[in-house]
Amino acid sequence: MTLSIHQEFNVGYTYPVIFTHGVFNSENDTFSKIIEQSGKQQKRILVVVDSGVFATHPNLITQIRTYFKLHQTSFSLSGDVHVVPGGEQAKQDPQIVNQIYQLIADQAICRHSFITVIGGGAVIDAVGYAAATAHRGVRLIRIPTTVLAQNDAGLGVKNAINLNHRKNFLGTFCIPWGVICDYDFLSTLDNRDKRAGMAEAVKVGLIRDRTFFNFLFQHRHELSRFEKNALQQLIQHCAKLHLDHIAANGDPFETGSARPLDFGHWLAHHLEELSRSEIRHGEAVAIGIAVDSHYSYQMGSLTENELQQILELIDTLGFELHTNCLSHVNTELALDHFRQHLGGQLSITLLKGIGQSYEVHQINNDLMKKSIQFIAEYVNTNQHL
Amino acid sequence: MTLSIHQEFNVGYTYPVIFTHGVFNSENDTFSKIIEQSGKQQKRILVVVDSGVFATHPNLITQIRTYFKLHQTSFSLSGDVHVVPGGEQAKQDPQIVNQIYQLIADQAICRHSFITVIGGGAVIDAVGYAAATAHRGVRLIRIPTTVLAQNDAGLGVKNAINLNHRKNFLGTFCIPWGVICDYDFLSTLDNRDKRAGMAEAVKVGLIRDRTFFNFLFQHRHELSRFEKNALQQLIQHCAKLHLDHIAANGDPFETGSARPLDFGHWLAHHLEELSRSEIRHGEAVAIGIAVDSHYSYQMGSLTENELQQILELIDTLGFELHTNCLSHVNTELALDHFRQHLGGQLSITLLKGIGQSYEVHQINNDLMKKSIQFIAEYVNTNQHL
Repeated sequence: MTLSIHQEFNVGYTYPVIFTHGVFNSENDTFSKIIEQSGKQQKRILVVVDSGVFATHPNLITQIRTYFKLHQTSFSLSGDVHVVPGGEQAKQDPQIVNQIYQLIADQAICRHSFITVIGGGAVIDAVGYAAATAHRGVRLIRIPTTVLAQNDAGLGVKNAINLNHRKNFLGTFCIPWGVICDYDFLSTLDNRDKRAGMAEAVKVGLIRDRTFFNFLFQHRHELSRFEKNALQQLIQHCAKLHLDHIAANGDPFETGSARPLDFGHWLAHHLEELSRSEIRHGEAVAIGIAVDSHYSYQMGSLTENELQQILELIDTLGFELHTNCLSHVNTELALDHFRQHLGGQLSITLLKGIGQSYEVHQINNDLMKKSIQFIAEYVNTNQHL
Repeated sequence: MTLSIHQEFNVGYTYPVIFTHGVFNSENDTFSKIIEQSGKQQKRILVVVDSGVFATHPNLITQIRTYFKLHQTSFSLSGDVHVVPGGEQAKQDPQIVNQIYQLIADQAICRHSFITVIGGGAVIDAVGYAAATAHRGVRLIRIPTTVLAQNDAGLGVKNAINLNHRKNFLGTFCIPWGVICDYDFLSTLDNRDKRAGMAEAVKVGLIRDRTFFNFLFQHRHELSRFEKNALQQLIQHCAKLHLDHIAANGDPFETGSARPLDFGHWLAHHLEELSRSEIRHGEAVAIGIAVDSHYSYQMGSLTENELQQILELIDTLGFELHTNCLSHVNTELALDHFRQHLGGQLSITLLKGIGQSYEVHQINNDLMKKSIQFIAEYVNTNQHL
């Protein structure tokens, strides 16, 4: 008695991503509206804040308490505001995820309650992982506070934590209930963090949108000084392109091997590991973009002029292209780790001019070493091609 | 510079559920076809077996090795076959999930490799959770080996483990790559396990399909003797109804509070806890169904005749309706835990005749106590209503 059933269904996903100022000012109703639109019942919300944000915004907790009091008929704080260590430690230390599980259990947070996480990409990743796995998913509102988190890491459909120092070994695909990007948090970032976040904007312009790349190139000097207006435009446009890619590429949960948003990332991951996270993600991505742009030039799919423009943009934004780690790169090993990370066959994104990309499944080691050497020497000599 | 983006996309999900005999006999190509259809590259497969299955099928491992050798151009065993403790311990002990993570890491299992789990519902749940969270999801093929797992627990889109003795506290929604139900595994189950699996069939007939209920009633004596043909028909039809519900109810990932497949489960979960899992899930579900059917009768949505038919079916199948735990039931507490488990407002499924259900959001405590008492005494006196 054999039988074969073909199980098939569709699921629609939707969430808002909103850019604002002063999210917890009493007159700002962005947050309260998102909660109120979720149903009439009074909601309980567990609020978790990145220690880095708390340190630079000591009034934030009082402000949140006041905001919640103002809206107490619609929602209430579950316990008090909880502060967790920021930075990579949030993803590295399993106790932080366990602490969130414990809060969810102790405070009887159910699948229709909310968790709100305010912080950088690492804290959003760790709290997001806990929220996605407790009760098979508690509603999550992300409030990213860095350039990188607002234009890339905090917007999408992934979360992850490390396991035994293996980066992003555990994670899920899980959409947030909503994302609120508050520009006011950016003012207290140090310059290195502001700059690092811009690498993903350069990346997404290169693979998807020549006009956006031109905007970045045209405003490279304002951006290098972190001028508010240019920076906010960079964030918004990068966010839009990032979200468009997820919605329109036909594979939001990454079942295939192609991953154009990971342009430059095979080398970036390797450099982060080689430097023991001394080089930040965005800084490593800038180097990775430069190297893979040069490789694209060698492949004949990028002109000399285009390559020069890319390198000049990255250089003007203030990224250091030279790092000692570049002389220790093991191209084969790095490509193989990247292949394992994506799953299936190797798939590396290259540029076809500025604004378009294509995938290759083999990399010529000698040519790649040439590209790495060229970029390592680019800063020192500012040589011509 | 505020901006609101409405992110929206659809994802299509599909997987096969196949019923067969002798899945690892050399002439059976069910398993090999599923792997081969996933792409041309040679695939690596991590195979995990429930210790309970291994104990009653000592030749299984040799058979798997031979089967894999036969298909070595298409796929290979990653390491050897791995045996993990069966039963609730698999979900209770975090070391088991960690052991699967370690195997995935050590053997470089990537997102396009496979994990195959062979066992009862608990092992499938635990290995499924590990597979769903490692690398944000490794392809999983489930081979359920019990009646309950083949007609219900092993088919759907959920996995879960316990945390600090909180049942199913951690879990995800994650579809399998494929499910293969091999009837041959059922022959070595003890009678208690065979019977327990039938409760979910009675349940799904009651809420969805009068014809299926009639089939069960008509064949209740064959089923009570676990006759192969009747049992296989029960499993197949129950599986179909279960899968249809997931695909057609519009909420496969359970974002709302209604959960008709959980008919009778608020009390079942409570009885499992009260008895410290001495009462098995299916046994507790049978009692839960009986009580909620009687409550439906008191609500006027089920006739006396229908109720008697339901109780006679459950009784003839051999379920014990009387348990000391029934006198310790705390209705309010049990309903509140169930509400927390679903999230949002309380939603209890009741019967509208046999084959249809409806949801209520309040339960009358006194009437429910009456229903519980009636069922507790039903076995003893076989009294009429």
